Amino acid sequence: MSPAVFIDALQDELQSIKYGQSPPELYDPIQYIMNLGGKRMRPLLTLMGAYLFTDDWQKAIRPALGVEVFHNFTLMHDDIMDQAPLRRGQPTVHEKWNGNVAILSGDVMLVNAYQLLLNVEADKLAPVLARFSRTAAEVCEGQQMDMNFETRWDVSEAEYIDMIRLKTSVLLGYALELGGLIGGADEEITRHLYEGGMNIGIGFQLKDDLLDVYGDPAKFGKQVGGDIIANKKTFLLIEALAQAKGSIRDELTDWLTRTEFDKPEKVRAVTAIYDQLGIRQLTEARINEYFVRGFANFDQVNADANRKTLLIQFARQLVERES
Amino acid sequence: MSPAVFIDALQDELQSIKYGQSPPELYDPIQYIMNLGGKRMRPLLTLMGAYLFTDDWQKAIRPALGVEVFHNFTLMHDDIMDQAPLRRGQPTVHEKWNGNVAILSGDVMLVNAYQLLLNVEADKLAPVLARFSRTAAEVCEGQQMDMNFETRWDVSEAEYIDMIRLKTSVLLGYALELGGLIGGADEEITRHLYEGGMNIGIGFQLKDDLLDVYGDPAKFGKQVGGDIIANKKTFLLIEALAQAKGSIRDELTDWLTRTEFDKPEKVRAVTAIYDQLGIRQLTEARINEYFVRGFANFDQVNADANRKTLLIQFARQLVERES
Repeated sequence: MSPAVFIDALQDELQSIKYGQSPPELYDPIQYIMNLGGKRMRPLLTLMGAYLFTDDWQKAIRPALGVEVFHNFTLMHDDIMDQAPLRRGQPTVHEKWNGNVAILSGDVMLVNAYQLLLNVEADKLAPVLARFSRTAAEVCEGQQMDMNFETRWDVSEAEYIDMIRLKTSVLLGYALELGGLIGGADEEITRHLYEGGMNIGIGFQLKDDLLDVYGDPAKFGKQVGGDIIANKKTFLLIEALAQAKGSIRDELTDWLTRTEFDKPEKVRAVTAIYDQLGIRQLTEARINEYFVRGFANFDQVNADANRKTLLIQFARQLVERES
Repeated sequence: MSPAVFIDALQDELQSIKYGQSPPELYDPIQYIMNLGGKRMRPLLTLMGAYLFTDDWQKAIRPALGVEVFHNFTLMHDDIMDQAPLRRGQPTVHEKWNGNVAILSGDVMLVNAYQLLLNVEADKLAPVLARFSRTAAEVCEGQQMDMNFETRWDVSEAEYIDMIRLKTSVLLGYALELGGLIGGADEEITRHLYEGGMNIGIGFQLKDDLLDVYGDPAKFGKQVGGDIIANKKTFLLIEALAQAKGSIRDELTDWLTRTEFDKPEKVRAVTAIYDQLGIRQLTEARINEYFVRGFANFDQVNADANRKTLLIQFARQLVERES
């Protein structure tokens, strides 16, 4: 079994899903955002989670896509809230149509996500949907925290980790847990899968913060330094703000409060401050810590060794990614 | 048994629901909109539907409130889309907080609605949630149709009826059907409940259109003629546009296209056009037709006569309402 088989199965099913017919303003944006691509990381985790415990991993395809539709719903609504013009290099839904269309199409996507998740065996419906609903509410909590952080300069490391845990990581945890539930894993095992996915997810998001500053421009795909230019409160900036004293602090504060600046110069200067404070090493250590925790969670999962290797390798790619 | 017992039970449970704790920007607006009041028509229909078939109607309370939370979620998001400043005389959520808060609180309310609906017996989960999800998607379709109609002058009567069926009536039908499902009614009976609720719902919405023009100002609660002032495409206006010929048509078109006008004068003039065209009688006949259909659906429901009377009386109040 190779991940390509899972990816192909997901893509085939994605093409066959009918979200709805009419009015087109409601359903065309769903097709549009679902076809913008993406790594399909979440449904892949679900299929790998199911395959740990059953040969019939195909029965996890539709629920797995429920998680993917939910994820894309959050992107559609987050893009409105963040007034983002582009998503994966293409116009966002609220730009291509309008804000009302993006609100309402997103709403119906959340319903579609539940509809896809209904495709599990009757005795699994209650845990699958109760756990999903809790996760979905947490993702909204994380997004609200992220918005609240925009106007605050005293965000603590613990608050930041909690925010990314809610906004990003719990859904990765749930995606894997869902696979376990569908595959027939017991409660203890599904908890390990959830926590493993969540820890890998926190490491994954911290890596995102790191790559934005220290990524290889040839491999990263986005503009290196984008977060610095935008004063985005990343793990790196929060750590730097917590540690900088004296003249370094003054210099950092100066760059954060300038309204006019040369972008490459600001990126170079703030990166130099991070270097002086050892922020890169600190962030790498923290990423490593979460990945180690995640792999320790997976160690607790009793399943066929070859099948587990597939999951571990996939998680390792997330660790070692450069884009 | 009296409806007051049901209402008290719903209010008690509403006070005890914890939607979530933190961040407050996410959950305070939910408490706020749920406490603005309203007739609680939908959860009442659910309890009455359950009581037709079981003494243990209390087990329907939480799922019934799921329908009410869903309804209030649609109000919160519709108010953003319609840029409405007030809801039940109080500032709307996007006015009191902001648009982003209203989007995200609404999203989590939709999740909360599903969480409340999960409180049904395991063997009823699949039909309860599948039917709810279909209904929820239809409500979004109706809202999109309603927005599309704003810029069109050629909306047909059939399109209009289809829009209000989706936007308003299917949820009334589902609320009643849900009660039947929880009470243990079979598929045929729940279909009659759904269709009965839906037909009453269409009559109810048409009555809304009628009261806006022909309601008693002392009883109506809102400004009579509000729809006329706003050129709102109601059943009455659509019928008038379909029937007006010659000079009456010119006069109607003139009032619809004036950008400056005396409001009471416009209300009087357009009402006079409706009078000339017999729109009031036509609308009343159509309302009556849907109520007759609804009561015929209820005739097919085999249940205790006294309990059915409770439902019929409640539906009759919706027919005879003057506000």
